[in-house]
Amino acid sequence: MRQSLLFTKTLKEISSDEISINASLLRRAGFIDRLTAGVYTYLPLGLIVLNKINNIIREEINQIGGQEVLMPGLTPKEPWEITGRWETEDALFKLKGVDDKEYALGATHEEVVVPLVQNYVSSYKDLPLYVYQIQTKFRNEKRAKAGILRGREFVMKDLYSFHTDEADLNKYYEIVKQTYIKIFERLDISKQTYLTFSLGGSFSKYSHEFQTISESGEDTIYICHKCNLAFNEEVFEGGEKKCFDCGSTDLEIKKAIETGNIFKLGTRYTLPFKFDYVDRAGKKQPVIMGCYGLGPTRSMGAIVETHYDDKGIIWPAAVAPFDVHLLILGKNNESIAKKAEELYNDLTQQGTTVLFDDREESAGIKLKDSDLIGLPIRLVISEKTLAADSVEMKYRNVDKFELIKLKEILKKLQK
Amino acid sequence: MRQSLLFTKTLKEISSDEISINASLLRRAGFIDRLTAGVYTYLPLGLIVLNKINNIIREEINQIGGQEVLMPGLTPKEPWEITGRWETEDALFKLKGVDDKEYALGATHEEVVVPLVQNYVSSYKDLPLYVYQIQTKFRNEKRAKAGILRGREFVMKDLYSFHTDEADLNKYYEIVKQTYIKIFERLDISKQTYLTFSLGGSFSKYSHEFQTISESGEDTIYICHKCNLAFNEEVFEGGEKKCFDCGSTDLEIKKAIETGNIFKLGTRYTLPFKFDYVDRAGKKQPVIMGCYGLGPTRSMGAIVETHYDDKGIIWPAAVAPFDVHLLILGKNNESIAKKAEELYNDLTQQGTTVLFDDREESAGIKLKDSDLIGLPIRLVISEKTLAADSVEMKYRNVDKFELIKLKEILKKLQK
Repeated sequence: MRQSLLFTKTLKEISSDEISINASLLRRAGFIDRLTAGVYTYLPLGLIVLNKINNIIREEINQIGGQEVLMPGLTPKEPWEITGRWETEDALFKLKGVDDKEYALGATHEEVVVPLVQNYVSSYKDLPLYVYQIQTKFRNEKRAKAGILRGREFVMKDLYSFHTDEADLNKYYEIVKQTYIKIFERLDISKQTYLTFSLGGSFSKYSHEFQTISESGEDTIYICHKCNLAFNEEVFEGGEKKCFDCGSTDLEIKKAIETGNIFKLGTRYTLPFKFDYVDRAGKKQPVIMGCYGLGPTRSMGAIVETHYDDKGIIWPAAVAPFDVHLLILGKNNESIAKKAEELYNDLTQQGTTVLFDDREESAGIKLKDSDLIGLPIRLVISEKTLAADSVEMKYRNVDKFELIKLKEILKKLQK
Repeated sequence: MRQSLLFTKTLKEISSDEISINASLLRRAGFIDRLTAGVYTYLPLGLIVLNKINNIIREEINQIGGQEVLMPGLTPKEPWEITGRWETEDALFKLKGVDDKEYALGATHEEVVVPLVQNYVSSYKDLPLYVYQIQTKFRNEKRAKAGILRGREFVMKDLYSFHTDEADLNKYYEIVKQTYIKIFERLDISKQTYLTFSLGGSFSKYSHEFQTISESGEDTIYICHKCNLAFNEEVFEGGEKKCFDCGSTDLEIKKAIETGNIFKLGTRYTLPFKFDYVDRAGKKQPVIMGCYGLGPTRSMGAIVETHYDDKGIIWPAAVAPFDVHLLILGKNNESIAKKAEELYNDLTQQGTTVLFDDREESAGIKLKDSDLIGLPIRLVISEKTLAADSVEMKYRNVDKFELIKLKEILKKLQK
């Protein structure tokens, strides 16, 4: 894409009430815009990143049998009353329609997915099954100061599994756990993300979160580096803080953000809806459930919180909006412009995605913007590099740069 | 995809308050599920169709310079007060947050996109520009009886254009008009879709809608077949009903659904936000706007309303969830099952998408379900067809079928 056509621009400063690293960098670099506290627009560069994250998650969840649907954001009061959460869930945005009909904006979708799946399941032969969506959620948050780490509106991947029995749930729960580890690896935040014991779940005292270390995070976790496990502060319930596995009290305390969670729900939601199946013996049994959340927008924030320096963002290649930032310095010279256009076209043709800074801006501004936007590879073409039939190539996360012959650069960047 | 793994099933009947063709067929065939009046879940088959429609629209809007963003659904009261629509727009869902902050759910996004674009535009050099999104919208509709033709929650492609002057807006308005015609052609509803004069727009007395003929539609249009134009009832304002172009009064009256609309907004939204640019002479001028809506979910409904028979849906190839429905009749015979599996794998390998009915159901149920679901091509593999080393092939919209040799079918279905 030609940067001269991109309608967004980098911003020198943003309003001072945005204190988190992720929002500050993403807003200044033109990835997101804040509409109001906790509510953001995804700008062209940001939407590409979000879609790349969504697609990585989608690929992995499809791999473990997930069937994708799209449930509504506007949900009627009745199912929330059936589960009792209309009154107890304080983060629900509630509203009324013209006919005085009451709705909640979906903050989670057990109340929608259970009666939905119930339509289609009657026998043990219909189970297990796995349904998920990547969808916009709303939470009536009191505090919304952590950028896209904790939004009032945000994108969520929520997966729900339905089983005949606990053993089958346990098996799938482990599969999802491994899949989440793979997703965080692909998003390049696995080194900062810990499988973390937390409270909750209907079948077991503990469930699991995936917590990504981040100064803007709102949770406190205790890391056992020996076991590569972490513990949400809440699990100690005021007792001694020690690793559940090895018993060590040598735990590192860190701020973190919950990028994923997995829960054994058991019959918490199937009983209120009387969601039964007929087993092999012809007897009715309640369906057993699990649920598994992973936040794409929150992960995008966590990626930034763990991939930046004082100059800007440093995107991992898998989610960068473009592979390469091609900068033309000294555009007024026609032969440089021509060579740069050629290179832009050739790279695009071979499937290397390029943000092409063809603007009439100073070298200083272009280099600064490039660091702020943070694509993995920067190519500079100028009178100086062309004198050596070359282009200057620099990785965003490495200080040194090198001259690469023009005739070699295409091959070098081939995927 | 194996139909035995698909969690949805066809339904014999649905609740009697769903009277429109589109909702009735889409629900029975397992494309959508109704959560409450005007609010639907897109099931696996339906989501594939919706994504195909979205991608056709996206490709065409990108072609005319559209830059895709994703704006929030939750919008604060303040910008709606600036334009005066907080009070006048009666289809707004309004709600309050924990801190008594008031919001509207976005029914349209002028109030968000104008201040957003204003951040980045100061000079005539920054214009024109075109910003769009494909996003979930909410409307507090009194009546929601037309299935996905008129939802309380629905998906919308909304494009906004920003110009220095009226002439430039007029030029782009014509470009969008032609692009919409192309989109409706690709969705295979162009024969039933009329460019229609309607009231509204700030610069001209008339604006344009794209109206698709449908018995479930809620608008009444008057078609001049000579000029291939239509007129929304409202434009006659009680006067004589005649074609604006040729003057003929020989107009056909039809029910129709507004699948698209294009508006010259002029300065209706830029003036309240004081969105100016500096012109070549250094003088401040208000930015001129156009807006262009096209409903993907509504178009999906319109496609069904114009592509069905008494047996079910007849999907156009471009938006069908799969290219082929492969039915295995008589699965208990192992050699048939083996041949069917081979064919399924071979077709999938060559990029032909297949819904493979490998369920243990009777031939009658499988054939009936296949007609209801409505994929463009049905392949039946059975003892009888295999005796002739063949597979039976039938187009959904043609009555006759033919036997095709197994060794020829792959090539025949190659795209």
